[in-house]
Amino acid sequence: MVAHGTVETPVFMPVGTQATVKTLVPDELARAGARVLLANTYHLCLRPGVELIRRAGGLHRFMAWNGALLTDSGGFQIVSLADLARLDDDGVTFRSHIDGSQHRFTPETAIDAQESIGADIAMAFDQPIRWGASREEAQEAADRSAAWAERCLRAHRRADQQVFGICQGGFDPADRRESAQRLASLGFQGNAVGGLSVGEPKDLLGPLLDASLSALPEDRPRYVMGVGAPEDLIDAIGRGADMFDCVLPTRLGRNGAYFHPEGRRNILNARYRDDLAPLVPGCDCPACQTFSTAYVHHLFRAREILGLRLLSLHNISFLVTLMVDARAAIGESSFSEFAADFLSRYRTTTGQARSRSSPPGRMPRL
Amino acid sequence: MVAHGTVETPVFMPVGTQATVKTLVPDELARAGARVLLANTYHLCLRPGVELIRRAGGLHRFMAWNGALLTDSGGFQIVSLADLARLDDDGVTFRSHIDGSQHRFTPETAIDAQESIGADIAMAFDQPIRWGASREEAQEAADRSAAWAERCLRAHRRADQQVFGICQGGFDPADRRESAQRLASLGFQGNAVGGLSVGEPKDLLGPLLDASLSALPEDRPRYVMGVGAPEDLIDAIGRGADMFDCVLPTRLGRNGAYFHPEGRRNILNARYRDDLAPLVPGCDCPACQTFSTAYVHHLFRAREILGLRLLSLHNISFLVTLMVDARAAIGESSFSEFAADFLSRYRTTTGQARSRSSPPGRMPRL
Repeated sequence: MVAHGTVETPVFMPVGTQATVKTLVPDELARAGARVLLANTYHLCLRPGVELIRRAGGLHRFMAWNGALLTDSGGFQIVSLADLARLDDDGVTFRSHIDGSQHRFTPETAIDAQESIGADIAMAFDQPIRWGASREEAQEAADRSAAWAERCLRAHRRADQQVFGICQGGFDPADRRESAQRLASLGFQGNAVGGLSVGEPKDLLGPLLDASLSALPEDRPRYVMGVGAPEDLIDAIGRGADMFDCVLPTRLGRNGAYFHPEGRRNILNARYRDDLAPLVPGCDCPACQTFSTAYVHHLFRAREILGLRLLSLHNISFLVTLMVDARAAIGESSFSEFAADFLSRYRTTTGQARSRSSPPGRMPRL
Repeated sequence: MVAHGTVETPVFMPVGTQATVKTLVPDELARAGARVLLANTYHLCLRPGVELIRRAGGLHRFMAWNGALLTDSGGFQIVSLADLARLDDDGVTFRSHIDGSQHRFTPETAIDAQESIGADIAMAFDQPIRWGASREEAQEAADRSAAWAERCLRAHRRADQQVFGICQGGFDPADRRESAQRLASLGFQGNAVGGLSVGEPKDLLGPLLDASLSALPEDRPRYVMGVGAPEDLIDAIGRGADMFDCVLPTRLGRNGAYFHPEGRRNILNARYRDDLAPLVPGCDCPACQTFSTAYVHHLFRAREILGLRLLSLHNISFLVTLMVDARAAIGESSFSEFAADFLSRYRTTTGQARSRSSPPGRMPRL
């Protein structure tokens, strides 16, 4: 239960880094069943700026989204924009990727900015690490994240906004467990597992999730950040995760890939040129209800923007519907069967984009 | 009255060259009040090909548009793709701008393709000329267009499809009048004025339109091709024009320009950064009903595709609404006052894109 409605879990949250889920309007997202969107504090602080969003009446009104919103704190940009970030124990100084200006982020300023932006859920300011960092770096980052989490809790004032903590711990299960235990002791309204989808091998995900999730309280939302491949969502739900966000559905959509119950497909494949059936027969997203696969194929061949839009919407609908189905299966105590059935049909692929935040200012590669 | 409904005039037809009005879905166009869309036979013949459209059940079904459709014949590509076109008295051979393959267009093949595509209105295959061509070239093109118009009429079979002729005549009013008179004598169900918006000075438009329109029958639709600036539409309606098409609203929208009752505006202007009012207060398009000018400004600054979508839709809504208002004024015999009032407020700009067909395969410049 958040300020803008009740959110049933498991839930997938489409990402609107810059106050827009790329190519889509809020009405389409609501009709696709999305209930929570994610936006990014770092990006919004730089552009359009917190003051404008506050004057507009908060982020909900600025982007015209009546559902729930969650803002990531900007901590992930320590990794994703590492070359532009200078880190110390008190916080981070970013050099803007837009105009080179300096921006100071601390736990206190990150919370203050998120209170002005006004999402239903604010995230603590944390420090993830990249894949390839040493265990010492990972432990230092986990320590710093724990200290920052306490400062975020103390700084937070806004009663109509929840604040979630984020645990780290790098790529060692024992460190993951310790970081999660420390976070659990702080009493956040929800707890997130951060620092995943940063380039680590896919087979690490399960053990790291188990170590983190098992140490977080079951009676509060457990949120796995930056994970969005269908098979990973199903797997993580089985391990106790409730919430997810990822740019994957929209990023894949803009690059011509779409989710199908049998696995991910590429619309530019020549076999779709003459395929007059929908992308996924029976799917009730507007792309599938309105257009043929051949039409969407034509849009991509002709480099038409509408193609990016239709596949983005289809992919979000696919994940949202997958979560609805998972929820129903959990309600019927048949989640294991549901998961096994889904995974037996869904052919997984490698090399997928799993990072959490879109590179700013880039046009689709089409 | 066409196969897919009754079309009241004056009417502006949004352009969907490649079977999509760029960035928009049919439902948005219908809700904006669009009743007729235009597609391009040349582009559709090359990609996705007439055979696929025929197998899909025709262009209406392929692009999921339930309103009326008009297909341009491909004649305009003799000008817009001049470097790829080899012309003779029987027709034109195009070298595909996509893959270099050869495509033969004659009056008969252009009509045959349009019958397969299945628009409500097919256009005769004509030969426009570029601005800068000699009067002799213009006269030769007009003669050829007249001969081709007759061949198109003879070739046309499909009873549920109308066919419109196109007059030419270059940039000389006397030649324009003669071409229109010849066309009028052929008895097409509607008549179009072609070969405008090819780079000629804007002050030529009025005299050339007068010469053409005055020689075309008043009891059938008179269609001015490729004109879409608001002030030009109002001016042309005053001269007797009923139908218009132009890429202007969508092309401008993708480049950040939008129509306002006081003239064209550029969303990237710094004064819109903090403007929390809609683009046009009172406008009932989804962009204006849902979002602030500051939000659309932010989308363009952040290079977000949603910005292109919102301005494209706003600009189409603006022209469609302008036509509805003009129709009402005509019904009340107050069109001159309406036109004078509109033009007194609308500040015209120079250097606008007025060409009819989008360059293929280009991503927006954003």
